Amino acid sequence: MANLTLVIGNKNYSSWSLRPWLLMRMHDIAFDEVQVPLYQAHSKQDLLARSPAGLVPILYHQDLVVWDSLAIMEYLAELFPAIHAWPQDQKARARARSLSAEMHSGFSTLRQQMPMNCRRQHVHIDITSHLEQDITRIQDIWENCLHDQPGPFLFGEFGIVDAMFAPVVTRFKTYGVTLRNARLRRYQEQVLSLHPLRQWYEDAKQESEVITESER
Amino acid sequence: MANLTLVIGNKNYSSWSLRPWLLMRMHDIAFDEVQVPLYQAHSKQDLLARSPAGLVPILYHQDLVVWDSLAIMEYLAELFPAIHAWPQDQKARARARSLSAEMHSGFSTLRQQMPMNCRRQHVHIDITSHLEQDITRIQDIWENCLHDQPGPFLFGEFGIVDAMFAPVVTRFKTYGVTLRNARLRRYQEQVLSLHPLRQWYEDAKQESEVITESER
Repeated sequence: MANLTLVIGNKNYSSWSLRPWLLMRMHDIAFDEVQVPLYQAHSKQDLLARSPAGLVPILYHQDLVVWDSLAIMEYLAELFPAIHAWPQDQKARARARSLSAEMHSGFSTLRQQMPMNCRRQHVHIDITSHLEQDITRIQDIWENCLHDQPGPFLFGEFGIVDAMFAPVVTRFKTYGVTLRNARLRRYQEQVLSLHPLRQWYEDAKQESEVITESER
Repeated sequence: MANLTLVIGNKNYSSWSLRPWLLMRMHDIAFDEVQVPLYQAHSKQDLLARSPAGLVPILYHQDLVVWDSLAIMEYLAELFPAIHAWPQDQKARARARSLSAEMHSGFSTLRQQMPMNCRRQHVHIDITSHLEQDITRIQDIWENCLHDQPGPFLFGEFGIVDAMFAPVVTRFKTYGVTLRNARLRRYQEQVLSLHPLRQWYEDAKQESEVITESER
């Protein structure tokens, strides 16, 4: 299936962009990639011309415009049922959607205090109690999933839930968060070593734009 | 289908709770209702005992726990395909999911500056430029949908998208936002006059708890 185009922001900073990009690359879904660097003079104008919400990521499929990472991945799950983007079991799928939606609208402290920044490592930040709660909850989620599943990913094979949490994996690397046990660290390493994610990191290194707010 | 239980917060304040509650009531889906008033001494502890995320709403179905309004409504769409919670046409469905996801993770200014408060009306607040942008975008969304559809709701019959935006309808009433044209005002009136929503307002009036942050 061709005719798919994904509009993304800076690979270094755009956590929302990473999610559907990684899902597509992990399942060899072919697409054209268009990049719109964020927070430049004409970024917002450019994005508003591409999608009514003016946000990345955006997926084009023929005359259809789909925006928001979660809606894009739901659409991909429908277009490519064979990739099993959601678990096949209905109850597991409901749980996977709960976790993805929790990530989608929540973890505001983690988002604000640990902005995605793939180029950097060993960045020291103060772990406030709210941030600690977010970090604990993320680890609880991963631990529960990995405990219930054969692995190597949160619901077995790589799916939407893994894509939703992939930017958190990169944040934990950037800000030096030590995960609480070997199983969680193995999951983190597994995600970081995925070929498409390593490519994403390489591309991020080549980008020259700097978003000051995400550099601390 | 029995065996469904929905855990909600205060009807006066909990916009997330309203969404799946309204979808179920609009489609005569039977469920038991459990209320956990928010921001009380034991609210968080009580909710954490009910769901790992510790947030309302929560749906129980037999031994399954589903949380987050959007994931709950996706599950209901699967359980009850005849209600057409999402549009039947695939492209319309992708668009409906885009709008629902945009509401789910966005409009942070509108959320913060216009907290849902069903009991109050004619509340004056300053309309900052960010808030103005949110209000404009909401009206653009509704207008585009109502222009493309026979109505009376955003995608024809009452569905998940209407449920997602229902708390915004109540906020516009509380804070006296005048919609830009008759078509939008008609949509607002249509939602406000739905029997289940009027019941929700009646129940909200009977609640005695006050969340100070949402009273301004």
